[in-house]
Amino acid sequence: MLGQMMQQPLLISSLLVHAERHHGEREIVSRRVEGDIHRYTYRELAARARRMANALTGLGLAMSERVATLAWNGYRHLELYYAVSGSGAVLHTLNPRLHPEQIVYIADHAEDQVLFFDLSFLPLIAAVAGRTKTVRHWVAMCARAHLPADAAGIPGLLCYEDLIEANHDRYDWPVFDENSASSLCYTSGTTGNPKGVLYSHRSTLLHTYAAALPDALNCSANDAILPVVPMFHVNAWGLPYVGCMTGAKLVFPGPALDGKSLYELFESEQVTVSAGVPTVWQGLLAHVQANGLKFSSMKRTVIGGSACPPAMLRTFGDEFGVHVLHAWGMTEMSPLGTVCSLKPRHLQMDAQARYAVMSKQGRAVYGVDMKIVDESGAELPFGSETSGELLVRGPWIVDQYFKGEGGNPLRVDAAGHGWFPTGDVATIDADGYMHITDRSKDVIKSGGEWIGSIDLENIAMAHPAVAMAACIAAHHPKWDERPLLVVVKKPGAEVTKAELLAFFEGKVAKWWVPDDVAFVDAIPLGATGKMQKNRLREQFKDYALPTA
Amino acid sequence: MLGQMMQQPLLISSLLVHAERHHGEREIVSRRVEGDIHRYTYRELAARARRMANALTGLGLAMSERVATLAWNGYRHLELYYAVSGSGAVLHTLNPRLHPEQIVYIADHAEDQVLFFDLSFLPLIAAVAGRTKTVRHWVAMCARAHLPADAAGIPGLLCYEDLIEANHDRYDWPVFDENSASSLCYTSGTTGNPKGVLYSHRSTLLHTYAAALPDALNCSANDAILPVVPMFHVNAWGLPYVGCMTGAKLVFPGPALDGKSLYELFESEQVTVSAGVPTVWQGLLAHVQANGLKFSSMKRTVIGGSACPPAMLRTFGDEFGVHVLHAWGMTEMSPLGTVCSLKPRHLQMDAQARYAVMSKQGRAVYGVDMKIVDESGAELPFGSETSGELLVRGPWIVDQYFKGEGGNPLRVDAAGHGWFPTGDVATIDADGYMHITDRSKDVIKSGGEWIGSIDLENIAMAHPAVAMAACIAAHHPKWDERPLLVVVKKPGAEVTKAELLAFFEGKVAKWWVPDDVAFVDAIPLGATGKMQKNRLREQFKDYALPTA
Repeated sequence: MLGQMMQQPLLISSLLVHAERHHGEREIVSRRVEGDIHRYTYRELAARARRMANALTGLGLAMSERVATLAWNGYRHLELYYAVSGSGAVLHTLNPRLHPEQIVYIADHAEDQVLFFDLSFLPLIAAVAGRTKTVRHWVAMCARAHLPADAAGIPGLLCYEDLIEANHDRYDWPVFDENSASSLCYTSGTTGNPKGVLYSHRSTLLHTYAAALPDALNCSANDAILPVVPMFHVNAWGLPYVGCMTGAKLVFPGPALDGKSLYELFESEQVTVSAGVPTVWQGLLAHVQANGLKFSSMKRTVIGGSACPPAMLRTFGDEFGVHVLHAWGMTEMSPLGTVCSLKPRHLQMDAQARYAVMSKQGRAVYGVDMKIVDESGAELPFGSETSGELLVRGPWIVDQYFKGEGGNPLRVDAAGHGWFPTGDVATIDADGYMHITDRSKDVIKSGGEWIGSIDLENIAMAHPAVAMAACIAAHHPKWDERPLLVVVKKPGAEVTKAELLAFFEGKVAKWWVPDDVAFVDAIPLGATGKMQKNRLREQFKDYALPTA
Repeated sequence: MLGQMMQQPLLISSLLVHAERHHGEREIVSRRVEGDIHRYTYRELAARARRMANALTGLGLAMSERVATLAWNGYRHLELYYAVSGSGAVLHTLNPRLHPEQIVYIADHAEDQVLFFDLSFLPLIAAVAGRTKTVRHWVAMCARAHLPADAAGIPGLLCYEDLIEANHDRYDWPVFDENSASSLCYTSGTTGNPKGVLYSHRSTLLHTYAAALPDALNCSANDAILPVVPMFHVNAWGLPYVGCMTGAKLVFPGPALDGKSLYELFESEQVTVSAGVPTVWQGLLAHVQANGLKFSSMKRTVIGGSACPPAMLRTFGDEFGVHVLHAWGMTEMSPLGTVCSLKPRHLQMDAQARYAVMSKQGRAVYGVDMKIVDESGAELPFGSETSGELLVRGPWIVDQYFKGEGGNPLRVDAAGHGWFPTGDVATIDADGYMHITDRSKDVIKSGGEWIGSIDLENIAMAHPAVAMAACIAAHHPKWDERPLLVVVKKPGAEVTKAELLAFFEGKVAKWWVPDDVAFVDAIPLGATGKMQKNRLREQFKDYALPTA
């Protein structure tokens, strides 16, 4: 027997309709590629999204066809989030930091029909426009007056504002199955080809509800949210959807992600919440500290993408009164999996113990379940000292990759439930707080025991002479693998191998201390700013560790 | 093309699984019918709910069969919330304040198979046990030792704790269609027979997400929630589900709803959030004020069920630092429709203007949409001065009543969307804040214009001599209807008709001022504590208004 409640599919367009109707006057502020500050309201967002939906119809877009974007965080990108998915097409956010070859591969694989781009990416578009197989229209996200003369060489080029002006703002958002595809994001693909994750309207809406909860990102109509995390990176962690659901003010930084530009925007727009990867915050903190500044409105910032250095947690908290919410997720997870919201007993701890908890990636957001398993696949209990491979499940977690790429990624348990193996190695404490100790492929297997490289890197990073540190497995004749610390020194700083190794004493078990240090000029970074340890391992594959 | 995310039905059992796994140590505290305080954890809740699910299987319960409860707010009732719905049966919460005849009617209509009851209701059970048609088992929610000797007359009587002890705590929650019926609640039925609202697992889960949001009830693992609103009244506004979703501590008051008992529990359990109807808070405030007490942990309380008197908002806020969240909903809405969370511009208002906003029922929770329509059914714009009939839609709003009772309740708009007519008359301001001015059937139609009775009652209630006031339409030879104020004076207080009518001057438009006052000893109240104005209208149907 079924319940007798109204049947309404969970559709992305309903977020926009809600925002227009119940938060129509709330502002959306963007620093544009053009350089100036643009501001308008949810009411205008909704009207322009409807114009763009009409424009897409005019371009012959059919249900479920892919529309790509190569764009920064800004209002036009936001309009496309709603116009594309809302009208039934699939929003494919391309990462502009990828190589042109990868972009061509991904656009072809996705069969993108239209590609919208910010003017910053004109050279990139010029490089790929003649090479993609399916793109019929290239749309510059600007007014015609801003279009440089050299853009004329791009076939089928259109201007965003022309499309807006030429189309009507009357449009009825279609109603369809909530499981329909809404958006597509490719993993950065450090091994093999990038793989597409195809989100649905349902998964997006459930993720949005969960993300806005008090113990997740805690977003309200009274917040002003500045997503530093790019809209081309797992939908800016869902914040463009959270904005419409809650009526929060949205502040978009465009391409200006340096400390000074961000700080100006935080202050002028009285931002209360932000979100981004640790490297961005390093730039911001450096600017603020160098100039003796304070944050007048910032209450908290969400840090994810990679682990937040404990020192950064403390600086934000102790010096600036900004609460850092450590979070963890993946492209395959929409992306939110855990947030490090504290429980009552943590609030009574002293600062040091509390920061230790805050350094963990956090507890599962409702909707996501997680477990760690040993090498035989058996679940390890919460609170065990041992780390294990981290597996997750939930309604906004990938079931399989786009077009079945890579086969079935899931592991099925005894109860018949599919779990997605994250590729992370982690512990989960008795309170359910997950702490990533390594990527499975980066873990160092020393005499059959696992050494987590991330903790070692965090310790090294806390040394005043260290700018960047990677810890990788080097071949060892007796133990198979032993940790080798690869270090980039800060400009002008000096430190010896022996001093660095001594720095680990008392901070980790003796057998975890790296066997050696190699100083390098640079550590290779991938398109999302993560260290490419596979390339380092390749570089150091014949490295001879000292055998004491 | 469908998205490629994991398919997981939204099931009530998943809330319990999450709470056990991620908040296993968090407490649930209950004042028992037995008189003592009982405390245990979500871990124990989950284990006992599984035992009870096995017990239900043992009693021969099939999927979708109804299991009734007649019980106060407490841990055993909570176990049934999860055991019954989680195992696929339907939890039917009966209102013990109804007359035995109505309970028999409703139990028969619902075809209840098993009925669980708190010992307080033994006399009621004794009165109905021989008369219901379908109930096979009556289960006393206590241990055998607490069962009075006179209970033996009830056929098929079982003891709750016997069932718990006799059954195993291994149980795999079944997985089924999320649209399956989960729970059933009857409207109080002031006109005609009570009608059943049949919730689904999906509607319940979506409602839970929305209810926990920062701008709705704003619930976190750091809250201790005391639902005064009964679990037999629209699932205690969803708080038993919010508890498991967020890991908040739950505190149940049992039958002791007097000011002293509640206050003790608020303080001893350091409650941060509560929820209930205005009358309960009157008792609590009276106790606290009479004894010069303060709240040491209470941050906010949700007030709904009927309009919160503005004076109560101010007393809570100014005297006790407790923020009142005015909320509105209905049994037909699971129940949450609006919450009066403020927007940024309200926070800058002076206290008086802010309290005026807080007196409104609030803005739509995401998921619910609402509109007001005029007598022709045309939508009135937000911000119009005129009131209109309030209509709602959303995935946790009734589509039709159980067994099709009363036909199709919805009105279909031009776009083909069904809207549920709430029976309320309201305004919606430019910020989207809804304010109920009357029930459709209570509105006073004076010369073709509508006069809202609720505002008039609120003014009268603010007079120091008035204990209770109802404003009803009385027949008028010229204007068809004119307002008559029916008043119960406070014990020992004196006030004349002329004084009371003068009290309205300057507070409403002249033509809204009641034509007369009738003093009575009591105003009839319904089972949920609301004034029964239909009975008053009957009583005063031949009342002769003064014709000046």
